[in-house]
Amino acid sequence: MISFTCDYSEGAHPAILEKLALTNMIQAPGYGEDEFCASAIEKIRTALGKPSAKVFFLVGGTQTNSTVIDAMLAGHEGVIAAESGHIAVHEAGAIEFSGHKVITLPGHKGKIDAGELKAWLQNFHGDGAWQHMVYPAMVYISFPSEYGTLYSKAEIAAIREICREYKMKLFVDGARLGYGLASPECDLTLPELAELCDVFYIGGTKVGALCGEAVVFPEPETAPAAFFTIIKQHGALLAKGRLLGIQFDALFSDGLYMNISRSAIGKAMRVKSMFQKKGIPFHIDSPTNQQFPILTKSQIDSLKDKVMFEIWEKLPGERSVTRFATSWATTEAQLDELESYISNL
Amino acid sequence: MISFTCDYSEGAHPAILEKLALTNMIQAPGYGEDEFCASAIEKIRTALGKPSAKVFFLVGGTQTNSTVIDAMLAGHEGVIAAESGHIAVHEAGAIEFSGHKVITLPGHKGKIDAGELKAWLQNFHGDGAWQHMVYPAMVYISFPSEYGTLYSKAEIAAIREICREYKMKLFVDGARLGYGLASPECDLTLPELAELCDVFYIGGTKVGALCGEAVVFPEPETAPAAFFTIIKQHGALLAKGRLLGIQFDALFSDGLYMNISRSAIGKAMRVKSMFQKKGIPFHIDSPTNQQFPILTKSQIDSLKDKVMFEIWEKLPGERSVTRFATSWATTEAQLDELESYISNL
Amino acid sequence: MISFTCDYSEGAHPAILEKLALTNMIQAPGYGEDEFCASAIEKIRTALGKPSAKVFFLVGGTQTNSTVIDAMLAGHEGVIAAESGHIAVHEAGAIEFSGHKVITLPGHKGKIDAGELKAWLQNFHGDGAWQHMVYPAMVYISFPSEYGTLYSKAEIAAIREICREYKMKLFVDGARLGYGLASPECDLTLPELAELCDVFYIGGTKVGALCGEAVVFPEPETAPAAFFTIIKQHGALLAKGRLLGIQFDALFSDGLYMNISRSAIGKAMRVKSMFQKKGIPFHIDSPTNQQFPILTKSQIDSLKDKVMFEIWEKLPGERSVTRFATSWATTEAQLDELESYISNL
Amino acid sequence: MISFTCDYSEGAHPAILEKLALTNMIQAPGYGEDEFCASAIEKIRTALGKPSAKVFFLVGGTQTNSTVIDAMLAGHEGVIAAESGHIAVHEAGAIEFSGHKVITLPGHKGKIDAGELKAWLQNFHGDGAWQHMVYPAMVYISFPSEYGTLYSKAEIAAIREICREYKMKLFVDGARLGYGLASPECDLTLPELAELCDVFYIGGTKVGALCGEAVVFPEPETAPAAFFTIIKQHGALLAKGRLLGIQFDALFSDGLYMNISRSAIGKAMRVKSMFQKKGIPFHIDSPTNQQFPILTKSQIDSLKDKVMFEIWEKLPGERSVTRFATSWATTEAQLDELESYISNL
Repeated sequence: MISFTCDYSEGAHPAILEKLALTNMIQAPGYGEDEFCASAIEKIRTALGKPSAKVFFLVGGTQTNSTVIDAMLAGHEGVIAAESGHIAVHEAGAIEFSGHKVITLPGHKGKIDAGELKAWLQNFHGDGAWQHMVYPAMVYISFPSEYGTLYSKAEIAAIREICREYKMKLFVDGARLGYGLASPECDLTLPELAELCDVFYIGGTKVGALCGEAVVFPEPETAPAAFFTIIKQHGALLAKGRLLGIQFDALFSDGLYMNISRSAIGKAMRVKSMFQKKGIPFHIDSPTNQQFPILTKSQIDSLKDKVMFEIWEKLPGERSVTRFATSWATTEAQLDELESYISNL
Repeated sequence: MISFTCDYSEGAHPAILEKLALTNMIQAPGYGEDEFCASAIEKIRTALGKPSAKVFFLVGGTQTNSTVIDAMLAGHEGVIAAESGHIAVHEAGAIEFSGHKVITLPGHKGKIDAGELKAWLQNFHGDGAWQHMVYPAMVYISFPSEYGTLYSKAEIAAIREICREYKMKLFVDGARLGYGLASPECDLTLPELAELCDVFYIGGTKVGALCGEAVVFPEPETAPAAFFTIIKQHGALLAKGRLLGIQFDALFSDGLYMNISRSAIGKAMRVKSMFQKKGIPFHIDSPTNQQFPILTKSQIDSLKDKVMFEIWEKLPGERSVTRFATSWATTEAQLDELESYISNL
Repeated sequence: MISFTCDYSEGAHPAILEKLALTNMIQAPGYGEDEFCASAIEKIRTALGKPSAKVFFLVGGTQTNSTVIDAMLAGHEGVIAAESGHIAVHEAGAIEFSGHKVITLPGHKGKIDAGELKAWLQNFHGDGAWQHMVYPAMVYISFPSEYGTLYSKAEIAAIREICREYKMKLFVDGARLGYGLASPECDLTLPELAELCDVFYIGGTKVGALCGEAVVFPEPETAPAAFFTIIKQHGALLAKGRLLGIQFDALFSDGLYMNISRSAIGKAMRVKSMFQKKGIPFHIDSPTNQQFPILTKSQIDSLKDKVMFEIWEKLPGERSVTRFATSWATTEAQLDELESYISNL
Repeated sequence: MISFTCDYSEGAHPAILEKLALTNMIQAPGYGEDEFCASAIEKIRTALGKPSAKVFFLVGGTQTNSTVIDAMLAGHEGVIAAESGHIAVHEAGAIEFSGHKVITLPGHKGKIDAGELKAWLQNFHGDGAWQHMVYPAMVYISFPSEYGTLYSKAEIAAIREICREYKMKLFVDGARLGYGLASPECDLTLPELAELCDVFYIGGTKVGALCGEAVVFPEPETAPAAFFTIIKQHGALLAKGRLLGIQFDALFSDGLYMNISRSAIGKAMRVKSMFQKKGIPFHIDSPTNQQFPILTKSQIDSLKDKVMFEIWEKLPGERSVTRFATSWATTEAQLDELESYISNL
């Protein structure tokens, strides 16, 4: 049965597997000090236009969020996120495990609003009891958001400006970064993103890698001096760091990362139009690789034995928000098969 | 230049790479709920003779130690380890990060002594102020130890008996488990180990995998009910859990795990004999894949431009303990080359 | 200048100071094992009608909340509270410091709604991704709430029933417990409260003591076996535990705790009527010792040089919610003086 | 029965009780912002000769150690202490609870040795794997030590110099500071101590207060900017901060703190000579208020029904190290009574 459940259903992009095979018997030092990591870091710096950026490879998203946030905050500081933010909902309390509160603002289709952020901060700093409260020292946003939506360049710039005013760090969770940058609605480039935040990560797991996220501090002085030790302390240091270096080296060779992403977005737009043709409404008008059609119970019943997808949220009247995701691995044959099912709904 | 620095210098055993390639485009659920993990778990259960054992796959050693220890201890409890134990020295405080004290006992070539453990516990429980102290609720041992040495079956059984008496858990760190079980000095089988402890892990990273450690609770009721969530909270849950399942499925097919291990031990014994032939002494008489010859400054100078190895510890008189490690990947050609250098010392 | 800022502006009730003086030179063991703590525990048990209740004395409110919650939750579990709950807002992240998430529900004048709690839990347990989320294992309510309001017996019983259904603990923060129980609107007795929750504390600091909160586990088997050690680990164990024992012994002798509370409530009702007579509206119709009149800027300007009170929240139109609190220490003379100022507004 | 068990067996010095009574009905702000704390801070600054020192009042010793250490260390950093240090043994893991490792050095009658400290640091920084280890960022010493012994001025200066060289903080636990400074063997004044460390605390609980420890940062820029919030987060902020301010104001009026301490030391020297006259040996030659005579089983049996004292450590041959402590509260009558028992041994 074909699956559009998520963008991590398959293994790795073939170019990654090839590179793993090709380099397999080369002896290299551990813990990220190998030639493959060094090469990948250089390629990422070039892609960013930031020759002195600090880049570190971690294994997974929750781990990366938890390690970065804990490394950049003092013990009594907290991080602001949308109510629907991954760190606020789906990380099993990993941020709190490291001692920090996730302070939530309303989510607007997965995004926080700069005006509301500013109002919240004004309120906090004007409160006579602020010293009895968790100090907000970082803003966390996801790009794309958990609902597949995108911040515009102006929206991120506005948030950044507020962060500067209040001496807060801006952290961008890029678990699906490629799918955001490759969207036709995106008005932002990778180098521009690097200018607009203090730290972000380039998601590998969901964009063609077996695992791996590349944490980037565009300005080297922003990176915590002891970040290597902090990674180790968080259980996030791979002995065979090469596994991550090789994968990101492949992803940043010959434009692969963006090629993968563009291809997935093209396929997502085809999925979107399949539902549109049938007049099926969407929960959110997503410009990225996750699509959220609202299906009736009978539509779900009709599809569920032929194709896998996720029930995202139940709605009144026996309708449900569903999620269909494409990825680097989605094939035209899978799309054709899906189309045949949808057209018969 | 050839390297005997460690047992994680190369990628993965070819059988693993093959299996990754073969399964690459199969769509599977995430987070360890895929068919590959299920198959690997069954094979591990069979190898243990424990059909109902609970098995979980994590990514790396420090992460595994930290997650298992935190999951099995209450907040105020601590874990007893040798002074030289990995969790006591080389995990950047990962155990303390999760709130638990590592209580250290003297290490005897990397091992704790059952008699000293018992005396310590008697002293603790006889102390009028014990309620003001960290409560010892687990014993952690490494098999093989950080010095390559092995506990005998009787030694582990004695420790287990003490754990039972004091209602403590026994946790065996098996980062190099295969190299221990395959040693000619080992009087213990994998099923016997499973009988002798509450939880242990089968190291993958250092025994042929790209990454991965298989945590085993031989008796299912010993596993924390919420272990999945705890893994996630610790940043140790892979979205593409298949990466771990596929590797362990390969390692536990056709006896690969033990074949790899036996081969590495055979090569380590050849390394050992190279130094013995030259009358070079050893820091510790290690029966496993790590050998610790004591070299003079001139011997080190002679070798260091031709072969990589680790300086383990400086000794008086300009001598140093060094470490030469073999692995699944060590070739006869590398051994021949090493022999030519050593014979010329 | 007289102050109605809070209920902890003075030292201790004279009966407490007397008892401290009277017992001062008696030698007693430390850490709560003294005769005064034993006597206070017996008196509290009698007041509860729970002869086997476990009672522990801690120093302050945030400390008590943090210690109790951490002691009763496993590492990956969280606690549900109202958005306005003290643990969610004014404890500087003490709960997160111990690793636990505070999950917030809407506050209705400071209270959570049983129906909303149940809906939230149904939603959580029906969510396919619940294992990726913080597990809700406790409900925290304040009695009175941070807005001075009270749950009725039926409301607490409904919450308790839901807790039972979902195997969650119910924890009642009684920092101002006396002022709640003494309110004319309260339909609950202390023994009834003890029947309706798993753990609660009897606030001393705000009800006549220099410091001190009495944590009560009405059913002894509910108390964590190692609670003494956990108190110590949380820095909450007093060497001179007698300081707490003596104070609670005084508070629970001759009905002092409830006498103090009733007297403060009577005075609060007089304050309330002063504002009512002037037609001044209230933010919340509080039946306890905290009153929240809404004052205009000119009213605040007129009062602020003669009497101290708190600005609670700014409202549109230059109006503010203010807080006037009474306590055991409020005198008739202070009330007369306040009345003269209010009547001239 | 008279007790020499510890120095916290009674309530408070009468001057403290008087001041509590005298100030009881004065209305004051909470959380340490009252006039009494302000006055106490000024008096402490004067006593130190440090007019701009930052001073904070916390409640108890373990709490103070945990809050100061966590506030001054980054998440991945640890603190070095003697094996017998209070934070290493008798704080139920409070330091680890906040995420930090206590790294232990051998204790020499309770003290660390500057030479051993330096050697340890050289070894650490020379170790190729130091980034995989907890980073030592603070040295903790107790003055007097847990065995009643004292560092000389030169010994502390040597440790300080090493701390400066390695950019580490020096923290002095002064739970019994007065008894150290008042010892005839002490060659250090309070202002000199303030010059020699980055942070220390002046113990109140064991030197005449009901509770309370005064944390001092002699140089204001050393104090963490958010220390108030960190105190709150650690559950260490008293609502009625006046309780601490009033006590330290009394202790630092008219030389009370040192008078109390000198008197206790004089009494301890009398206790010492009682045992010396009988030829009873000591475990340690303590110059402070804790004396550690080694008693035989029959001596203990003879004393134990007439006087309370602590069994500190069992020795071979049915002998035990015992502890007899004096304090501000010890009376001549108690000493006479003790002498009559000892002289009959």
